[in-house]
Amino acid sequence: MCGIIGVSNHPESARLAYLGLYALQHRGQESAGIVSVDEAGVARTHRGMGLVSDVFSEGVMDSFEGSTAIGHTRYSTAGSSVLANSQPVLVRYRSGTLALGHNGNLTNAAELRRELVDGGSIFQSTMDSEILVHLIARSRHRDPADQIREALGRVEGAYSLVITVNQVMYAVVDPRGFRPLMLGKVRDAVVVASESCALDIVGAGAVCELEPGTLLRIEGGKIDYLDPLPPQAPKRCVFELVYFSRPDSLIFGESVDQYRRALGRRLAREHPALGADCVFSVPDSSNAAALGFSEASGIPLEHALIRNHYVGRTFIHPVQAGRDAKVKIKYNTVRDILAGKKVVVVDDSIVRGTTSRGLVNMIRHAGAQEVHFRVASAPIVGPCYYGIDTPTRDELIAANHSVAEIAAYLGVDSLGYLSLEGMVESSAGDPTRFCDACFSTHYPTPVPSDSAKLRLESEAARAQKV
Amino acid sequence: MCGIIGVSNHPESARLAYLGLYALQHRGQESAGIVSVDEAGVARTHRGMGLVSDVFSEGVMDSFEGSTAIGHTRYSTAGSSVLANSQPVLVRYRSGTLALGHNGNLTNAAELRRELVDGGSIFQSTMDSEILVHLIARSRHRDPADQIREALGRVEGAYSLVITVNQVMYAVVDPRGFRPLMLGKVRDAVVVASESCALDIVGAGAVCELEPGTLLRIEGGKIDYLDPLPPQAPKRCVFELVYFSRPDSLIFGESVDQYRRALGRRLAREHPALGADCVFSVPDSSNAAALGFSEASGIPLEHALIRNHYVGRTFIHPVQAGRDAKVKIKYNTVRDILAGKKVVVVDDSIVRGTTSRGLVNMIRHAGAQEVHFRVASAPIVGPCYYGIDTPTRDELIAANHSVAEIAAYLGVDSLGYLSLEGMVESSAGDPTRFCDACFSTHYPTPVPSDSAKLRLESEAARAQKV
Amino acid sequence: MCGIIGVSNHPESARLAYLGLYALQHRGQESAGIVSVDEAGVARTHRGMGLVSDVFSEGVMDSFEGSTAIGHTRYSTAGSSVLANSQPVLVRYRSGTLALGHNGNLTNAAELRRELVDGGSIFQSTMDSEILVHLIARSRHRDPADQIREALGRVEGAYSLVITVNQVMYAVVDPRGFRPLMLGKVRDAVVVASESCALDIVGAGAVCELEPGTLLRIEGGKIDYLDPLPPQAPKRCVFELVYFSRPDSLIFGESVDQYRRALGRRLAREHPALGADCVFSVPDSSNAAALGFSEASGIPLEHALIRNHYVGRTFIHPVQAGRDAKVKIKYNTVRDILAGKKVVVVDDSIVRGTTSRGLVNMIRHAGAQEVHFRVASAPIVGPCYYGIDTPTRDELIAANHSVAEIAAYLGVDSLGYLSLEGMVESSAGDPTRFCDACFSTHYPTPVPSDSAKLRLESEAARAQKV
Amino acid sequence: MCGIIGVSNHPESARLAYLGLYALQHRGQESAGIVSVDEAGVARTHRGMGLVSDVFSEGVMDSFEGSTAIGHTRYSTAGSSVLANSQPVLVRYRSGTLALGHNGNLTNAAELRRELVDGGSIFQSTMDSEILVHLIARSRHRDPADQIREALGRVEGAYSLVITVNQVMYAVVDPRGFRPLMLGKVRDAVVVASESCALDIVGAGAVCELEPGTLLRIEGGKIDYLDPLPPQAPKRCVFELVYFSRPDSLIFGESVDQYRRALGRRLAREHPALGADCVFSVPDSSNAAALGFSEASGIPLEHALIRNHYVGRTFIHPVQAGRDAKVKIKYNTVRDILAGKKVVVVDDSIVRGTTSRGLVNMIRHAGAQEVHFRVASAPIVGPCYYGIDTPTRDELIAANHSVAEIAAYLGVDSLGYLSLEGMVESSAGDPTRFCDACFSTHYPTPVPSDSAKLRLESEAARAQKV
Repeated sequence: MCGIIGVSNHPESARLAYLGLYALQHRGQESAGIVSVDEAGVARTHRGMGLVSDVFSEGVMDSFEGSTAIGHTRYSTAGSSVLANSQPVLVRYRSGTLALGHNGNLTNAAELRRELVDGGSIFQSTMDSEILVHLIARSRHRDPADQIREALGRVEGAYSLVITVNQVMYAVVDPRGFRPLMLGKVRDAVVVASESCALDIVGAGAVCELEPGTLLRIEGGKIDYLDPLPPQAPKRCVFELVYFSRPDSLIFGESVDQYRRALGRRLAREHPALGADCVFSVPDSSNAAALGFSEASGIPLEHALIRNHYVGRTFIHPVQAGRDAKVKIKYNTVRDILAGKKVVVVDDSIVRGTTSRGLVNMIRHAGAQEVHFRVASAPIVGPCYYGIDTPTRDELIAANHSVAEIAAYLGVDSLGYLSLEGMVESSAGDPTRFCDACFSTHYPTPVPSDSAKLRLESEAARAQKV
Repeated sequence: MCGIIGVSNHPESARLAYLGLYALQHRGQESAGIVSVDEAGVARTHRGMGLVSDVFSEGVMDSFEGSTAIGHTRYSTAGSSVLANSQPVLVRYRSGTLALGHNGNLTNAAELRRELVDGGSIFQSTMDSEILVHLIARSRHRDPADQIREALGRVEGAYSLVITVNQVMYAVVDPRGFRPLMLGKVRDAVVVASESCALDIVGAGAVCELEPGTLLRIEGGKIDYLDPLPPQAPKRCVFELVYFSRPDSLIFGESVDQYRRALGRRLAREHPALGADCVFSVPDSSNAAALGFSEASGIPLEHALIRNHYVGRTFIHPVQAGRDAKVKIKYNTVRDILAGKKVVVVDDSIVRGTTSRGLVNMIRHAGAQEVHFRVASAPIVGPCYYGIDTPTRDELIAANHSVAEIAAYLGVDSLGYLSLEGMVESSAGDPTRFCDACFSTHYPTPVPSDSAKLRLESEAARAQKV
Repeated sequence: MCGIIGVSNHPESARLAYLGLYALQHRGQESAGIVSVDEAGVARTHRGMGLVSDVFSEGVMDSFEGSTAIGHTRYSTAGSSVLANSQPVLVRYRSGTLALGHNGNLTNAAELRRELVDGGSIFQSTMDSEILVHLIARSRHRDPADQIREALGRVEGAYSLVITVNQVMYAVVDPRGFRPLMLGKVRDAVVVASESCALDIVGAGAVCELEPGTLLRIEGGKIDYLDPLPPQAPKRCVFELVYFSRPDSLIFGESVDQYRRALGRRLAREHPALGADCVFSVPDSSNAAALGFSEASGIPLEHALIRNHYVGRTFIHPVQAGRDAKVKIKYNTVRDILAGKKVVVVDDSIVRGTTSRGLVNMIRHAGAQEVHFRVASAPIVGPCYYGIDTPTRDELIAANHSVAEIAAYLGVDSLGYLSLEGMVESSAGDPTRFCDACFSTHYPTPVPSDSAKLRLESEAARAQKV
Repeated sequence: MCGIIGVSNHPESARLAYLGLYALQHRGQESAGIVSVDEAGVARTHRGMGLVSDVFSEGVMDSFEGSTAIGHTRYSTAGSSVLANSQPVLVRYRSGTLALGHNGNLTNAAELRRELVDGGSIFQSTMDSEILVHLIARSRHRDPADQIREALGRVEGAYSLVITVNQVMYAVVDPRGFRPLMLGKVRDAVVVASESCALDIVGAGAVCELEPGTLLRIEGGKIDYLDPLPPQAPKRCVFELVYFSRPDSLIFGESVDQYRRALGRRLAREHPALGADCVFSVPDSSNAAALGFSEASGIPLEHALIRNHYVGRTFIHPVQAGRDAKVKIKYNTVRDILAGKKVVVVDDSIVRGTTSRGLVNMIRHAGAQEVHFRVASAPIVGPCYYGIDTPTRDELIAANHSVAEIAAYLGVDSLGYLSLEGMVESSAGDPTRFCDACFSTHYPTPVPSDSAKLRLESEAARAQKV
């Protein structure tokens, strides 16, 4: 997953991009980068591995110039974890300087890459995003907007993009709108960002959310809505709402916090835990759902798990090794609350089940008498091909085991997943607008076969290591 | 403030100390250090500025040897922010190798330092803890326990200590017991740590809390209770419970989480906010109090403020500059909850008022109709001389302004502080055992005059900069 | 200027490349890089700014795998000083993984780049070497050797190359042979390197020097001489012998040390300094010439200038700013030798004249009565377009001033440059085989106009900064 | 060994100290440090492991303030290689801020340390220099000059010192004058430094060399010669002239370059190599001696060994491991000169013999027919206790083997050491003023027994590792 931001027509464009990346840090902690472009079209860039606060120093920030900037924070979805795979991509091509930040994942990347490579293109990274850059550069159109449109006509999958060609910025959302992209203004400057929380931090009022298929041209404070991309049925990623986005963000037309509250209430109705003494969340991503559960069930809310915030976010750590050991580093129990109690744990989702199992162990060790596990989303039965870094089907516990088996594996007294209907109906908006492929395996686009995916990755891995 | 840990009789002593420091990171983020001592008495040390995870690499951890180790994580209370002031202090003296980690603050440091300096002692840091090391080294006793006892006979103030003399470990709590120190065992190893959460993370069962005046000698898995220090009335720091310790810790004989819940309930009774639509916390330190407030008042709990956990903890950042700007970096509002609502904000304490004022601004900006601020502790009217890094009286808003003035400064519709009686009576234990000097100005020891304090600090600053 | 090395069929290929780069450090101190390729075709790379010893740590070296490796150490000739411009270039293209290290400079880079960009190619660096990679990737041939040959058919200028396509290595010298490339063997491994000193350090016996136009295919210890490139009159860079290469190297069929000795002897005959008390070198590059001068003239040799070797090499520092101040940092005089003496200073060449002028100042300040400056090469009257980082014509003192004017500028009593005939006739080999363009302005290829060169550079600078 | 510099009464004192350290880098590459003191007595310090250019950044240099500064560059003689052992030492004591930089080694350190430790002193490093600081701090005198004098009355051995007490600077040379210390002035500023080359680089004219026993007080541009220390027969370290100091320095009243030339000439007379084809040096420390040898013998000088200056200086590398491998990294041969020739190699000294043996191997491998090794100093038969980092007697090849045995070990056709008489008589000054203990074992002071030395070191090692 990734976070992107673009700032146009602001004298401190790179500093605003930096602040925005800070607010989008939860969307990717592997690498971060900023490109700024000045009036003469000179681009300056800095990218590095790690957190935004580690990558950018005061000195680096001082070196940026120009009123246009884009930023990117990355967690690997395609391409391995090396600096060469950090974004924004910055190249020089026919029409000048081109920078691009991409949130999402292309589903026909392997074919396109093969075709480009056959045509003599070279690849310096293993990111699918580099394909987009090649396609834009190969277009015979003269207007960059036409080049971008032609390139997008070739790709399938999920892409929210901020692009600069010289000092002109473009913002794009794919026709299905898998990933969010918000538009805001602060004085004369225009800002686009993955989530509204990044607009908030730079003091930008949210103008609106970009609809699926939008192609914007932004220059000198002016926003041009170019002809939209060919329409498709919208497929907003429900997992953004369930887990990924920040609760203070407004995306896909609704409040993330309110949606999660609704999930919790619905979960309490679908899987009540009668007679439980208390309910608590796995902090922080399921805080809202636990509150909703408590509200609807009347079971008192507690804070029984404490999270050490000096460690990162489990789900998006790249390496599996050592994950189990990390449960204890990240979480601890409040024993007085748990001893002798019948408790309800609310979590937002279960991926592999290893963290949940570790948590249940801790809760039992603290003396809980009964542990009832409630999940505020449906079982994850398929990998995501649109930008969320879920593992392969083999590692998804719900893709390979029944709820009863999972309950046994977790060691809980009962386990209840929210139904898929419950998930989509909890939305304040149109429940049909979602992509729920990881919960339903109804992929809205052709997807690479698992073997193709593996082959691509191993090919990519060959291209560059260290 | 600081966190300390000591591990004795464990083949991986330094790694346990490292894990423990991880859990104690909230007690100090300025520097961290570990000393390990092997069977031959050879000490190895590594100290650095920054977070535990930044200071220690895998390579550094590999370089430690020996079954005894102590660790320290520091936020400056006395002495400026430089590597020379990081702990543990490690020196060679008459009886061998001496390492010392100190949590607390000595109140007669200036006099002792002057006396030692007059006697020809040299100081390489500006920490009061270096005084302790000199006093131990100057003792004519042969037994290190006697040396330590003699040294402690000279100092006044707050000190929880882990000390090693060669491979023997000593754990000390001053006669008033200002700071917590927990004792645990994991198999044959003995662990002492500032809070029980550090015992949890290394899998050590808590044996007990060290009583005020305790002096322990720990060697080869054996714990000797030496004669206690001359008794004093206990003065447990109530601010540890109110704000500083982790909610999953058990200190001073009670659960931090449960105490804060009780504070919140009492606050709701003392300062109800009739007709409010919702109550929410300033996360995370006031989560429990807000829950208690909701419980007692029946006002629904919300999560209206979201904290970006990729930044540190406001209160303990060393430099004032830029603090106001940081409110927005750390917190954001959930607008849907706040728009048009009468809200209650629960915070654990107000120090300077700048963060609170920034939060109130944000809450109003998100559309709240009325803002009622509730503080789960009494007004802070005096600086702490016992280890909490509160500012001087001049900067403490409640030391210089009435509640009405503070309410006006914050821009709230009403402001309610918990009473001092309410605070101490919320305890599950003896309410007379607390030091509440920062709330009452009843200092249990003579304290340096403000001018003396300033002089010491400016003297210290002269000794070493950069 | 750059140094390159390739190692094939050795289990520790990257470590040999590392050692070789160490010996080639004088050819470029701006950045260094290594690519290794294993049996499965997986490439690993590490590149960084700075010296070889700074860029590669033990940990980095451990991460390389595979029996094929190439290395590069760079001083910027085309493209600005940023990490993106470090080599080897590593990309994935139609035939697999392609890595390339380039010593030299292409003279038709601007046209080729424009053409490629028009054809949709994207550029991630400002190096002319990236053009070669695009040309290889765009070739429709299937055999990489044919692809390389086709690409080389398009480029003009100077190039000694090591290339890997998967695990097969190619070594190339352009048809004029501007830059040296040596071939050696150590047991079953094949090594190619810019200078023989790099073969020596890895214990490889020199097999031979690659003739102009050579194209080698190296795999599994086997060396195939493919059909040579279309022949041209050889144009060996005489400046390699005069200044650039290490004196312990054998290049272009002769000993660098012996050639410089011959230059010094000839210089003594062309410009004797009758009655001088002593002769000394500007260490270390003119040590051999000064010895030759002393030998031929009978004037006693002294060591009157001492160089601080903890600083780099003047000529190849990228930034002009502060150069004058650096003379004193790099050199100091031995006063006892100079006081009251008539002295002869032998230097290898004069570029801008600033260092020489600083040295003369120092020598006078130390009490020398007469200073006779002797230069073991002809006046530099034109920039190099073939890989030596000489400045533009405007900055070349001899391109704009007579010898008398230069003597006045330097403040010397007499100034003598070796004649161009003297230079070439000092060679032990065929004197017509040299490129002496910087001394004669007889460029063996069309060269970019100065304005074109400037335009290219400013375009390149726009493509990427920071 | 170490280099020291002190600058008084200069607005850019730290920058001058920095430049001076640069010129003294050859005296120690392990760590470097600077302390500056401003008008208010506030001291600022920065110390780090590594070369001067690595330790100090522009930002660090900017942070220094004040017109007084001292600097130190260190190679370990006593105390292991850790940051805690870097200098200047900076402490706060009775009279204020005390900073001290020490070149030399105390011979009664073990006794003094034991006594101080018994008296309650604590040690934070393993350097003997810390003893001096304790002794000064323990003095009951009020005037710092008296404190220093009292402390020096207790110590034996070698010490050239720069000390600051608040803004007053003191410069000291021990009564025997083992180590050089030069005094210079640049405008109103006073500079003292280990060698005259450091005065040259800051543009300071050398005022004079400090005589043995000198104690200077320097303040506000004024130099006070305080009463000298109790006199002793001078014992100037001849090894400074033979090897350690820079050839452009003037120390002990003579030119290092001229002295080494004289050594070479004498060596040629004592051990001619009749019929040899050429003579060459092991660069750079024996360049002057080889030139002298050539001059006196008439054997033509060559440059047959080339040194890669991107590596450090062999003799003063702390770890023995890997030394042999390093010969090849540091040196290479010029084959054309050596092939089939009878050659004379001139080196300044032989310590362990490993480097010499490696060089002889290389020379033979390059085809030399006969190798005659000439050493421009006498056999080293004893360790130095006065600051030169020679190994223990066990490792000194000449302490344990006859010249014939050494010749066999090196694999040379003949081996000639200069006689001790030859060494001292080559001086332009009084030949009796030298300490030649490492050549004669006539130690001018009591020296620690080897076992005592080992005990001290192992004790020291225990005090602090990592």
